[in-house]
Amino acid sequence: MHDDQWTTDWQSVLADRTKRMTRSMIRELLKFTRVPGIISFAGGLPAPEVFPVREFRESSAFVLEESPERALQYSETEGFLPLRRFLAEKVGKYGVAAGPENVLLTNGAQQALDLLGKVFISPGDTVLTEAPTYLGAVQAWNAYEPRFVTVPLDDDGMRVDKLDELLERNPIKFIYVLPNFHNPAGTTLPLERRRELVDVAARHNVFIVEDDPYGELRYEGEDVPPIISLHKENTIYLGTFSKTLAPGIRLGWIIAPEVVMDWLVRAKQGADLHTGTFVQMLAYDIASRGILKRHVIDICRVYSERRDVMLEAMEEHFPEGVAWTRPQGGLFLWVRCPPAVDTEKLLKRALEVKVAFVPGFAFYPDGGGRNAMRLNFSCMPPDKIRVGIERLGNAIREEIASAQ
Amino acid sequence: MHDDQWTTDWQSVLADRTKRMTRSMIRELLKFTRVPGIISFAGGLPAPEVFPVREFRESSAFVLEESPERALQYSETEGFLPLRRFLAEKVGKYGVAAGPENVLLTNGAQQALDLLGKVFISPGDTVLTEAPTYLGAVQAWNAYEPRFVTVPLDDDGMRVDKLDELLERNPIKFIYVLPNFHNPAGTTLPLERRRELVDVAARHNVFIVEDDPYGELRYEGEDVPPIISLHKENTIYLGTFSKTLAPGIRLGWIIAPEVVMDWLVRAKQGADLHTGTFVQMLAYDIASRGILKRHVIDICRVYSERRDVMLEAMEEHFPEGVAWTRPQGGLFLWVRCPPAVDTEKLLKRALEVKVAFVPGFAFYPDGGGRNAMRLNFSCMPPDKIRVGIERLGNAIREEIASAQ
Repeated sequence: MHDDQWTTDWQSVLADRTKRMTRSMIRELLKFTRVPGIISFAGGLPAPEVFPVREFRESSAFVLEESPERALQYSETEGFLPLRRFLAEKVGKYGVAAGPENVLLTNGAQQALDLLGKVFISPGDTVLTEAPTYLGAVQAWNAYEPRFVTVPLDDDGMRVDKLDELLERNPIKFIYVLPNFHNPAGTTLPLERRRELVDVAARHNVFIVEDDPYGELRYEGEDVPPIISLHKENTIYLGTFSKTLAPGIRLGWIIAPEVVMDWLVRAKQGADLHTGTFVQMLAYDIASRGILKRHVIDICRVYSERRDVMLEAMEEHFPEGVAWTRPQGGLFLWVRCPPAVDTEKLLKRALEVKVAFVPGFAFYPDGGGRNAMRLNFSCMPPDKIRVGIERLGNAIREEIASAQ
Repeated sequence: MHDDQWTTDWQSVLADRTKRMTRSMIRELLKFTRVPGIISFAGGLPAPEVFPVREFRESSAFVLEESPERALQYSETEGFLPLRRFLAEKVGKYGVAAGPENVLLTNGAQQALDLLGKVFISPGDTVLTEAPTYLGAVQAWNAYEPRFVTVPLDDDGMRVDKLDELLERNPIKFIYVLPNFHNPAGTTLPLERRRELVDVAARHNVFIVEDDPYGELRYEGEDVPPIISLHKENTIYLGTFSKTLAPGIRLGWIIAPEVVMDWLVRAKQGADLHTGTFVQMLAYDIASRGILKRHVIDICRVYSERRDVMLEAMEEHFPEGVAWTRPQGGLFLWVRCPPAVDTEKLLKRALEVKVAFVPGFAFYPDGGGRNAMRLNFSCMPPDKIRVGIERLGNAIREEIASAQ
């Protein structure tokens, strides 16, 4: 195809950090899920049938009619000011005194994680995460070469009672926590634990990164105040429109103290100058017209039904010895099989009957989760959830039998 | 505003790399340019009056009518396949045998620079750039803590004849070059120099990063083949829609060997999962309907007129001893004042008469350019260019007088 006389030995010119970059197992898995007829509980995708398509159409037309020269032009690194104001007010309802100067728009919450890694993690620094934790955070941060220390979860989220000892023994840079409808575990951290978390972080002088992509998708119970509302000056909060509006516009945000914002803005300038102007104006138009709020109610109705269907089907079809979380919101639940079951092997069996999920080990930065798995309930219609869970139950049964 | 008992000492928790991150001088300067009545030659902004607004409206409506569920959903890290195919064919016309597997969509070319830094630069590695060079590249790469070695330019771009000695003395990771209508210098590298560049890079076993944001905006003369067409397996090529369609959609791309693509995709997954699906489908729709080509012709007509007006006004109003480049395309030209003139001081004087530009030193990673400046000619209408250049000529005259 070419007549060059030599070729760079590309492996030899990679940066040291690059050797730690792995492809996302989930994104690779998604390739399997494109097989026709597959019932996939593997993705973290919102259901496309609940996207506010009409609203996107109307807002696109409006923005390109009213302010095309602004929407298509370069804009400020911090983000579109009215949208920043809107997002500051959003967290303000929990008593957080944030203004637009505390908000940075990012390309999804994934970029927020990347920028935090860039600004805070030197090679060898230690980050404390939950185990299991959000895979994308580990992937983003691996590029900055940290060490990970983990704290386990139970059905109420992070085992905050174990933090004191961990922080005593390790020089932690920050604590990463998903307090609402945890990905992958589906758990929610109760207010009491949030208070304890804030106290222990303060005692050990470490800050907290609160990742909250699902907080608005609550199907039962009362909202729990975000950690940032208990601990504003030492918490960095991450939000996203990916689950409430649509992920294809890649729009997330960071709320942080102004002094941190200054560094994040520098990092963001180097990374991509700014987030797309057009999509920010679109999101602002949709959000400010009150559509977002109504739309979230619609999503919650659809997803809570799917969650209920999945939980019922699991009761019916999963064998004895299998346990799972009962999330009050979000997109995921977490299943623990008997120790003899290796969910990586189980996945092969499940794919044979056209069911996909993500094996638990993918969510452990330092090993574990071999008998667990994450199930997504938002993306399949109820009838497919029933069929898929029945097949998965059978596959687990077979795997238990073959393991004995 | 808050009642926390303690506050993180944020300075003390920054990563080492963060200390090298600076705010973009140009983006900071853009704040001045929002003063009413200012005539700004400082930005690198395309003229909003030539944005293809009607086409964006039509394509938005079309994409959200035909494939809303796809446009608003997560998508592949590599980018929207039809768009990747389109971009591979685009470079294919120069004889580069690239397929979609060689193309990665990014959030503007700025993210392309960031991803290259992430994948290739270990702290202490040496990168060879031109001096002056694109400021955004230095800013992106500073986060990865390289050392910069520079090669000067003349009116034909990079002094390729100086490379052998520089490469002999320094262990260079890669050579960064803007061959077409250089930002900030406005120069174009002739074919003969491109061939020499490729030869010397091959002899020293270093690869080339070819940054080509302006290549399509040629106002006179013949296209020069891109470096990647002379040297495919060892050149990484960067392109962008920011100057041909609109920067507010943040859409750029990388063309690289497949083995490099694999690493870039990992880095991109960690950085933000993928570039916005909706804007990629928009750009593809506009580009594939042949609108892009027609639109580039329109832009070239408008910008070449502005370039001519600026060059004429400079002939008329700039004092003796001032020299400038005569770009065959792009958005910028480069002015050298007599050595006594410090363009940072000149800028203050110019702002008093409501004219802005970027002082030359901003484009030198290792010092220099104190008597130079970059002028953008794309963003102001002809009458303002004439007035602005006249004022700037007077300011230079005054600055020369006061320096004596």
